[in-house]
Amino acid sequence: MIVVLRPNLPPEEIDKVVAEVAKLGYEPRTIRGEVQTVIACIGDEQTHRPLETLVAWPQVETVLRVQKRYKLVSKEARKEPTVVTVNGQKIGAGQPFCLMAGPCSVESEEQLMTTARAVKAQGATILRGGAFKPRTSPYEFQGLGEAGLKMLAAARAEFGLAIITEVLAEKDVDLVASYADVLQIGARNAQNFALITAAAKTGKPILLKRGLSMRIEEWLLAAEYVLSNGNPNVLLCERGIRTFETYTRNTLDLAAVAILKQETHLPVIVDPSQGCGRADLVIEMCKAAAALNADGLLVEVHPNPAEAWSDGQQQVDFERFAQLSQSLKPFVAAVGRPA
Amino acid sequence: MIVVLRPNLPPEEIDKVVAEVAKLGYEPRTIRGEVQTVIACIGDEQTHRPLETLVAWPQVETVLRVQKRYKLVSKEARKEPTVVTVNGQKIGAGQPFCLMAGPCSVESEEQLMTTARAVKAQGATILRGGAFKPRTSPYEFQGLGEAGLKMLAAARAEFGLAIITEVLAEKDVDLVASYADVLQIGARNAQNFALITAAAKTGKPILLKRGLSMRIEEWLLAAEYVLSNGNPNVLLCERGIRTFETYTRNTLDLAAVAILKQETHLPVIVDPSQGCGRADLVIEMCKAAAALNADGLLVEVHPNPAEAWSDGQQQVDFERFAQLSQSLKPFVAAVGRPA
Amino acid sequence: MIVVLRPNLPPEEIDKVVAEVAKLGYEPRTIRGEVQTVIACIGDEQTHRPLETLVAWPQVETVLRVQKRYKLVSKEARKEPTVVTVNGQKIGAGQPFCLMAGPCSVESEEQLMTTARAVKAQGATILRGGAFKPRTSPYEFQGLGEAGLKMLAAARAEFGLAIITEVLAEKDVDLVASYADVLQIGARNAQNFALITAAAKTGKPILLKRGLSMRIEEWLLAAEYVLSNGNPNVLLCERGIRTFETYTRNTLDLAAVAILKQETHLPVIVDPSQGCGRADLVIEMCKAAAALNADGLLVEVHPNPAEAWSDGQQQVDFERFAQLSQSLKPFVAAVGRPA
Amino acid sequence: MIVVLRPNLPPEEIDKVVAEVAKLGYEPRTIRGEVQTVIACIGDEQTHRPLETLVAWPQVETVLRVQKRYKLVSKEARKEPTVVTVNGQKIGAGQPFCLMAGPCSVESEEQLMTTARAVKAQGATILRGGAFKPRTSPYEFQGLGEAGLKMLAAARAEFGLAIITEVLAEKDVDLVASYADVLQIGARNAQNFALITAAAKTGKPILLKRGLSMRIEEWLLAAEYVLSNGNPNVLLCERGIRTFETYTRNTLDLAAVAILKQETHLPVIVDPSQGCGRADLVIEMCKAAAALNADGLLVEVHPNPAEAWSDGQQQVDFERFAQLSQSLKPFVAAVGRPA
Repeated sequence: MIVVLRPNLPPEEIDKVVAEVAKLGYEPRTIRGEVQTVIACIGDEQTHRPLETLVAWPQVETVLRVQKRYKLVSKEARKEPTVVTVNGQKIGAGQPFCLMAGPCSVESEEQLMTTARAVKAQGATILRGGAFKPRTSPYEFQGLGEAGLKMLAAARAEFGLAIITEVLAEKDVDLVASYADVLQIGARNAQNFALITAAAKTGKPILLKRGLSMRIEEWLLAAEYVLSNGNPNVLLCERGIRTFETYTRNTLDLAAVAILKQETHLPVIVDPSQGCGRADLVIEMCKAAAALNADGLLVEVHPNPAEAWSDGQQQVDFERFAQLSQSLKPFVAAVGRPA
Repeated sequence: MIVVLRPNLPPEEIDKVVAEVAKLGYEPRTIRGEVQTVIACIGDEQTHRPLETLVAWPQVETVLRVQKRYKLVSKEARKEPTVVTVNGQKIGAGQPFCLMAGPCSVESEEQLMTTARAVKAQGATILRGGAFKPRTSPYEFQGLGEAGLKMLAAARAEFGLAIITEVLAEKDVDLVASYADVLQIGARNAQNFALITAAAKTGKPILLKRGLSMRIEEWLLAAEYVLSNGNPNVLLCERGIRTFETYTRNTLDLAAVAILKQETHLPVIVDPSQGCGRADLVIEMCKAAAALNADGLLVEVHPNPAEAWSDGQQQVDFERFAQLSQSLKPFVAAVGRPA
Repeated sequence: MIVVLRPNLPPEEIDKVVAEVAKLGYEPRTIRGEVQTVIACIGDEQTHRPLETLVAWPQVETVLRVQKRYKLVSKEARKEPTVVTVNGQKIGAGQPFCLMAGPCSVESEEQLMTTARAVKAQGATILRGGAFKPRTSPYEFQGLGEAGLKMLAAARAEFGLAIITEVLAEKDVDLVASYADVLQIGARNAQNFALITAAAKTGKPILLKRGLSMRIEEWLLAAEYVLSNGNPNVLLCERGIRTFETYTRNTLDLAAVAILKQETHLPVIVDPSQGCGRADLVIEMCKAAAALNADGLLVEVHPNPAEAWSDGQQQVDFERFAQLSQSLKPFVAAVGRPA
Repeated sequence: MIVVLRPNLPPEEIDKVVAEVAKLGYEPRTIRGEVQTVIACIGDEQTHRPLETLVAWPQVETVLRVQKRYKLVSKEARKEPTVVTVNGQKIGAGQPFCLMAGPCSVESEEQLMTTARAVKAQGATILRGGAFKPRTSPYEFQGLGEAGLKMLAAARAEFGLAIITEVLAEKDVDLVASYADVLQIGARNAQNFALITAAAKTGKPILLKRGLSMRIEEWLLAAEYVLSNGNPNVLLCERGIRTFETYTRNTLDLAAVAILKQETHLPVIVDPSQGCGRADLVIEMCKAAAALNADGLLVEVHPNPAEAWSDGQQQVDFERFAQLSQSLKPFVAAVGRPA
């Protein structure tokens, strides 16, 4: 930590801050600059108390952190990329590009089965589908609950696809984990640490979506909650952040893919459906995600988006999904992934 | 709902959209403009399915909502202001200005008791203090848990202050409700509908903080989850939104107070501590909140902020809190509230 | 400047960075922490080249600034508050609260004269009115130009009000300065340094609006362009920043008032009309601005907002302006300003 | 325009609004819904006055636009893509991918010539270099001015590269246009309509950067200022928007590329240097831009970024630029562009 003092402090005031730094367990080193004095505080920031509280003192202008706040998710902690295995399929750097697809909400057995068949035919290996839906309004469709989970299990049995579905409540974690192959933590729960911890403890792989206005550092720290609870299998899913732009529902932050590839060993997935909120942009954004060497995609697909029970505007139909799958191939090849 | 069609559509394409609108349960009225045709869709948007899904069709350019999405929280649903009673104290329009204060985290009995005494002496009637703390990093202090709740109860017994404290997990709702007079739902859980619903069902008053990047409409809909679960006692707490500005931790959106006073009958509280993240701005922002006729404040107070276990940079000490309390008086008087 | 090195660097790599720091004119002091080494670089950051460029080197993780970037606008440069005098009226700390009001656009002599009479009757001392209008679309009304300036001059002659009006183009600076008492630089030109410099050189007071997504630091640096061009008379005008919220056109950042009062000696004005984009919020936000001890207001007033040629939704009519003026009085009194 | 009335209005109040709509030149059609009445207002929104002003009336809840606000830049106005020719090189849909590269600032003849040689060797056809620099602080390097322009002209003469450089001031437009092949309007001037208009009138191609927090609609309307001033040669350049994320300087909004390809016939360029503010992300973001079928790139390249006079942290060196150029090839091929 670096404590920056206000300009023109008398020496006895500087000494008081130095003493407080020492009291808080750091070794202080005072550096007198031409205009301002700073105190470099030696000590591991991850095991000592943070010093930002010192700005409560009138002598202190600001406190600057030096170290990164995350540990287990960082490349310092693990040099090789994490490969998450889901029903035998490997996801991560150097592995085949992973296509997860399916409806926003599970609506009926027919809807789910026809979609499962369609996405499998185009190369998807994991079926998505919401059984518990987080809805902004209590009056909107909240999902079929366990009936939806059973339909997902039936689709797995019939098509051999793995299942990813969102868990919304601590009380449902065991239920959902008993059906799903991957537990999804949604953007609205990205800092619901009670839910994240409960999900982590099931041992199932966790797909952790980025929160609506979450900094990458915060997202990695949320993942740190999973790893520090003994579960190494996290997929980070970029799904857009909230900005002032109104032509899209969210702004898909594709630079996050490149940053995560530098900062962490965890696999990175892109969700272009939530990420833009517009079906007509999905194919293009998937190409960009593949070019950035993302490890996979999470795409919403519906047999008839205009009559979907939720978020029809961002779901692609079967024809567009087929086009998507085909048009991705040269980009996946260009980054050198195995087919 | 208004369905806006793309320019220059042939009549038979317009007819297809009209038929789909009727199929989805609305009565369509086609209006041919000079450049574009729109279909006004007659039907209660709160009981019919939303039509935004129709943008999945190539004929449709956009779909515009007409009605507001919230019901029970609106002034149409209830003309008189809601007054929430906490341990006999009334909070809401026309009631005395409510001062809630106390430490960010409960750290020890001594810390809590001295703070309780100090804030009570300055007119606070509700004591805040975190026993369960949502922390960005798993390595930061997570709160004392039930031990902290017991200390809060002891402070209530000694000083006659009501208690507000945050609940973070569904599994802790009953425990926290057995100690607290008001349950706080924090910004990170503002769309954790499972937690909100569980808290609502305890019947205790709920203080619902605005999420980090939550639109006012979404916030009112989150409150709608409480009311629609049978609990009318909600306090809405503005605590800043996330923006690009770096001189403050959040941008306190004081216009939200004025908007909420128009849109809803629920009381509005302002949290200037989280709202700016800087103790040196707290007094000024409290004055502004009082001038806007907010119904109360939630202020973080600590005996020694520089050594606080969490968020010391935004906590005021006792001297500054006394100054705050005194300096508020003319502003509270100016809006015509009873003393 | 503090140069933070990557963890686990061999000494010879640290030495290379130290040598480069010295080459760039700073005196380097190396501090070896438990995890990471930092180099404190002694030298005035305002006269030396910034070192952020060093992140181009693989050894460097990040570079942290210590000093503030602005000089003349800071309280270090000038301890007493700046008082700007406009036609004999003093604006600034300790001076009477300044009410600037008038239509968004000058539309006609009748419109302007009736408005000038109405705002003067309610205590306004400066008349605003746009003769050159920055419009998002080239097809919208662009202002009456010099004809509008003449009407403003006529209103000054008749009512004794000073005149503030926006200047949009370098080529119009002398023309506008020949009519106006205060030159307004609008939000869209807040970093148009050529225009700011040209306006500064007229010697007229400059009202500098905050840009649409301008950090406070950047705003102060834009004001620094005025002062460093020899013009000390700057009014900083908060007018809202762009966020994701849609119930208001902008989010009025009232904490900026409190921050500017700490950081600078320059007067601070609040524009609640642009700041919210909604006439129904203007009175409330003016009360809050007065409570924060802003030095004045810039309010849009129109005889018939529903038929205004620009931005009618944010202009108040005469009745509401009278109500505004009256309702402000107790708040202005509460902060201890002279009447 | 659609005027949405407040719920439960008496008929005579509705009639007043209808009459006002007619007075303002639109043909009103009243549609009584189950809960709220709306008035569809028939009339070309691009030639009539906007009706948003009607929210000034208490009867009106909101006013919704139907038509898009831009004309000449839209695909309705021109079906075929615009191809901008710069020194014989064609830029736009179906043309070869255009690589513009060079230093942030022109610093010396040697710096510019070595860079020009290096970027040409890797396939760049247009040389960028700032001679007039918009700097946040007046104390930072402001560019070499005309001396820099002369160096750019010398580089063109020697290497046959076309020249793009920024123009900052109306008074410099003719000077800059006498040297440059493309005039760049920077992000800070993206709504400086006086400068845009002056630049447009030179007849030179204009590269128009997106503003720091500009909506796509506003950006297209800024381009409309160029086209409506008789200059059809506009390149739109995405360079990131301002968000809360701190790991990047800006958030590069790559969805904007896909949206612009739908909305306009103008070519789209991506600037990954400003867009992320980090040299280590440039190559990855260039791949994504190519995958999205952008028409070209604007990349900052410097012989020694650590000693650059401006923005060294986002400039790539020659080795990385060579790597960039080579690694782009499969992505450019994958979208089917000619080599």
